[in-house]
Amino acid sequence: MTTLYGYFRSSAAYRVRIALNLKGLAYDQAPLNLVQGEQLAETNLARNPQGLVPSLITDEGVTLTQSMAICEYLDERYPEPPLLPEDITERARVRALAQVVACEIHPLNNLRVLKHLVGELGVDEETKLAWYRHWIAEGFQALESLLTAEAGTGDFCHGDTPSLADICLVPQVYNAERFECDLSAYPTIQRISANCRALPAFQQAAPEAQPDAR
Amino acid sequence: MTTLYGYFRSSAAYRVRIALNLKGLAYDQAPLNLVQGEQLAETNLARNPQGLVPSLITDEGVTLTQSMAICEYLDERYPEPPLLPEDITERARVRALAQVVACEIHPLNNLRVLKHLVGELGVDEETKLAWYRHWIAEGFQALESLLTAEAGTGDFCHGDTPSLADICLVPQVYNAERFECDLSAYPTIQRISANCRALPAFQQAAPEAQPDAR
Repeated sequence: MTTLYGYFRSSAAYRVRIALNLKGLAYDQAPLNLVQGEQLAETNLARNPQGLVPSLITDEGVTLTQSMAICEYLDERYPEPPLLPEDITERARVRALAQVVACEIHPLNNLRVLKHLVGELGVDEETKLAWYRHWIAEGFQALESLLTAEAGTGDFCHGDTPSLADICLVPQVYNAERFECDLSAYPTIQRISANCRALPAFQQAAPEAQPDAR
Repeated sequence: MTTLYGYFRSSAAYRVRIALNLKGLAYDQAPLNLVQGEQLAETNLARNPQGLVPSLITDEGVTLTQSMAICEYLDERYPEPPLLPEDITERARVRALAQVVACEIHPLNNLRVLKHLVGELGVDEETKLAWYRHWIAEGFQALESLLTAEAGTGDFCHGDTPSLADICLVPQVYNAERFECDLSAYPTIQRISANCRALPAFQQAAPEAQPDAR
């Protein structure tokens, strides 16, 4: 059985849940409470020396880490339905859209960074929120421009089926909403996010639907 | 002709230069001075609404962005020599190692984030350097653990040929050295980095070898 070590509010775990659901794969969940630091416990460091979630233990007993690497693995191992288009230029577009989230927005706003800002740099709550919203705005402006300028955009980030780009987008929109970011300047992002959230694979991956949600 | 819009010290452009060199591809360079903000000029925003480097204009005239997406594109279009192993579990390992750098270290330490820390949060030079070194230490500790614990490691991050993981590692080591980070706790990272830097593909991609180096 496949097991996902995650946390209901982790964006990266959320991505992997969507990918698993889109592929129609069954999996067990083993939640680690990031707020309580369970990801840094010895047992998890043995599993994932990065002290991060998610880790996916495959049905073959192999431990995989890094959400984007896990999604690409799932796509290579279970090709249907595809998370990336067939054409290599289109694949590059989808990966680039995914990476705007995964390499430009999320790394700056995840829990360990916010904790570091408060704990080490001593910033107050207002400054922390401004930091959060700044990187959302920078990244979503870029993403909105790409999605409106490029012909590849359809009901979803690329065409009319969900891809790796949507898998990254939806958890980032969820987080932006949680931090009460103003998303009115990003109508395409909102439209695509709504289309995704109408699908069971995304609904069942949502943080509030997880066993450790509280 | 393929054209790379980059900057000699940009980690992300450095990655793409290594990938192009490993594939033996000729390319023109069009440098944008990030310190002077040239990446935010209208002409570059038309090319890349993210206001970032690198962008790669392919020989077919297609504009690609996001360094990791570009490297995967190059690997799919020009399969030899491969940047990823054939086995899907091994591919996942290489991508995960690459993403420790590309999703956990580099996004926190790139120029626009350092500028934001100083300009918006008003941190002093010492705090900025401490921030830089903190994320290098966090990420390199994780990477060193993975590289020493996992059997896949060889002369390079995975086996005895350079892969996407090495393409990410070397620019990050270069940056860490530039910011005078203490790397003595990471002997495996140092060993692999030295092996990479002995290869012409890496040497010719180094910042100091670029036309805009000063």
